[in-house]
Amino acid sequence: MTVTLAIDCMGGDHGPSVTVPAALRFLDTDPDVRVVLVGRAEAVEQQLGVAQVRYGERLSIRHATEVVGMDEPPALAMRNKKDSSMRVAVDLVKSGDAQAAVSAGNTGALMAISRFVLKTLPGIDRPAICSTLPTLRGQTHVLDLGANVDCSPAHLLQFGIMGAMLVAAVEHNERPSVGLLNIGEEDIKGNETVKQAGELLRHSGLNFYGNVEGNDIYKGTVDVVVCDGFVGNVALKTSEGLAQMLATFLREQFSRNWVTKLAAVFAMSALKGFKHKVDSRRYNGAALLGLRGVVVKSHGAADVFAFEQAIRRAVEAARNNLIERISARMERERPAA
Amino acid sequence: MTVTLAIDCMGGDHGPSVTVPAALRFLDTDPDVRVVLVGRAEAVEQQLGVAQVRYGERLSIRHATEVVGMDEPPALAMRNKKDSSMRVAVDLVKSGDAQAAVSAGNTGALMAISRFVLKTLPGIDRPAICSTLPTLRGQTHVLDLGANVDCSPAHLLQFGIMGAMLVAAVEHNERPSVGLLNIGEEDIKGNETVKQAGELLRHSGLNFYGNVEGNDIYKGTVDVVVCDGFVGNVALKTSEGLAQMLATFLREQFSRNWVTKLAAVFAMSALKGFKHKVDSRRYNGAALLGLRGVVVKSHGAADVFAFEQAIRRAVEAARNNLIERISARMERERPAA
Repeated sequence: MTVTLAIDCMGGDHGPSVTVPAALRFLDTDPDVRVVLVGRAEAVEQQLGVAQVRYGERLSIRHATEVVGMDEPPALAMRNKKDSSMRVAVDLVKSGDAQAAVSAGNTGALMAISRFVLKTLPGIDRPAICSTLPTLRGQTHVLDLGANVDCSPAHLLQFGIMGAMLVAAVEHNERPSVGLLNIGEEDIKGNETVKQAGELLRHSGLNFYGNVEGNDIYKGTVDVVVCDGFVGNVALKTSEGLAQMLATFLREQFSRNWVTKLAAVFAMSALKGFKHKVDSRRYNGAALLGLRGVVVKSHGAADVFAFEQAIRRAVEAARNNLIERISARMERERPAA
Repeated sequence: MTVTLAIDCMGGDHGPSVTVPAALRFLDTDPDVRVVLVGRAEAVEQQLGVAQVRYGERLSIRHATEVVGMDEPPALAMRNKKDSSMRVAVDLVKSGDAQAAVSAGNTGALMAISRFVLKTLPGIDRPAICSTLPTLRGQTHVLDLGANVDCSPAHLLQFGIMGAMLVAAVEHNERPSVGLLNIGEEDIKGNETVKQAGELLRHSGLNFYGNVEGNDIYKGTVDVVVCDGFVGNVALKTSEGLAQMLATFLREQFSRNWVTKLAAVFAMSALKGFKHKVDSRRYNGAALLGLRGVVVKSHGAADVFAFEQAIRRAVEAARNNLIERISARMERERPAA
């Protein structure tokens, strides 16, 4: 099946200078994809140059006059900028002209616009943001990462279902294990919300592992880690901060004096292998789950390589019927819930 | 002032084989300290050997017949084991025979026993666990780390006060900055509890920085990071998991083949410097704050070096009047709260 992807070319810290080259690189790797570049036509065309001709009808531009600012309040962006590149990209998913949208813009605005335009799936109260993280065993998926700061047990159950369907769709793992982020393994641990969510998950028919703790995220204990958006956001940003600190210390130690600088040259291959293994760009692209359409959020600071990964995630999700999977699973859940 | 320290010698994964040598090493570095080794006399004496004579009255043994198990339910440990080494160590603080207690035992039991025996300070509803973490700029203190999973805004304010007084006492920084862990910098971010806690902290007279995010912990943005125990526990354990994963990957890359193994030898000095800088043993020793006495919890898996750091933290806190500082600050707070 050919997937048509709408790309918000103006979003992110770098705009078309990153989004357009990433789209072209992706078109080169995947013949079954069409891309609609959404944004100010002149800015997009300037980046495209003569390349446009090469892709024929696989590549098109959809002019949009406005741009949502990175710090713009989501409600204002939604109300006032009906011709923003972000809004138009999501509109294309709504109309069926595209099967997925990708944006590196303002997270809050993308969530508000997507929710308003696409609506949530039946049985889903709130969409969630789901990221992929590297683990000792491969990768895991964590949600929610900041869309919802006050979650009920039922919301956490829905996150579990959405996360499991995402893994089923993009990793072809039909019974992914789901863990509930808590402060101990025993069922009696945690606050009331988490305890009740544990009960719901245990009776959900999902492959529920039970409680997991913060260190289980990177151990890769489960395929999906469920938590409320406050906790998930803190866990993710704490990880970012720790990784940056460790990278800084490692660099400092290798540039201490001429001996350590020379050692760094000898150690280049190992250090490069390490860098590749933990390269956060490889995991770029968070899914906005629970909507009636595929929307993927790229990190705002993404470079061409990172943005290409976000595009890939969006295409994989659309190609493997993510929305239909969540929808069908919620259908089964509703009588039990 | 000579500080007398009660050490629960039986706690932790290694018991007296770690706690006793650590106590002796500490006695060698600090002449103004007396140590009471609490535990089964024969087990403690076996570790002491002839060393006991060397320290004269600076070192004594207090026999205790029972041991609290690492997985023992806190309520049972408190009710049934009145002659456990943990209980007797805390009792010595209560009676004034010691100014601080250190244990590497079961965290829940230590908290329950300390709270029952010592009671909380006036104005403090719940004790909190406060750990020190390395940052790009030095170190920071985070609390609560798991004692309290459902916190009110008033509890978070109390954590801020207790954390600030700890830093004032042990780092001689009289106006430490306090940040509130949240999912964005703006005052409107976060759930209701956090928003209200922000209001209380803003009007508290503390040096309140405002909201901080997860990455600010390791950036070292503030001296004290305040959060509820659920979020704090997840942040800490997520950090542990990430650090372990990165260490594993780094080791793997350096043992990939003979070239990288050789590189590791050349890079030894840099890698050792790195390891020292992020050595979690240096930060061992979490303070149980808000009690009418100094109690420090060591990591259960601590080795001699790590346990010695926990002892040092306990002595520093007692020597610099931690309890009196928190008490005095709460006195000032109460009319305003």
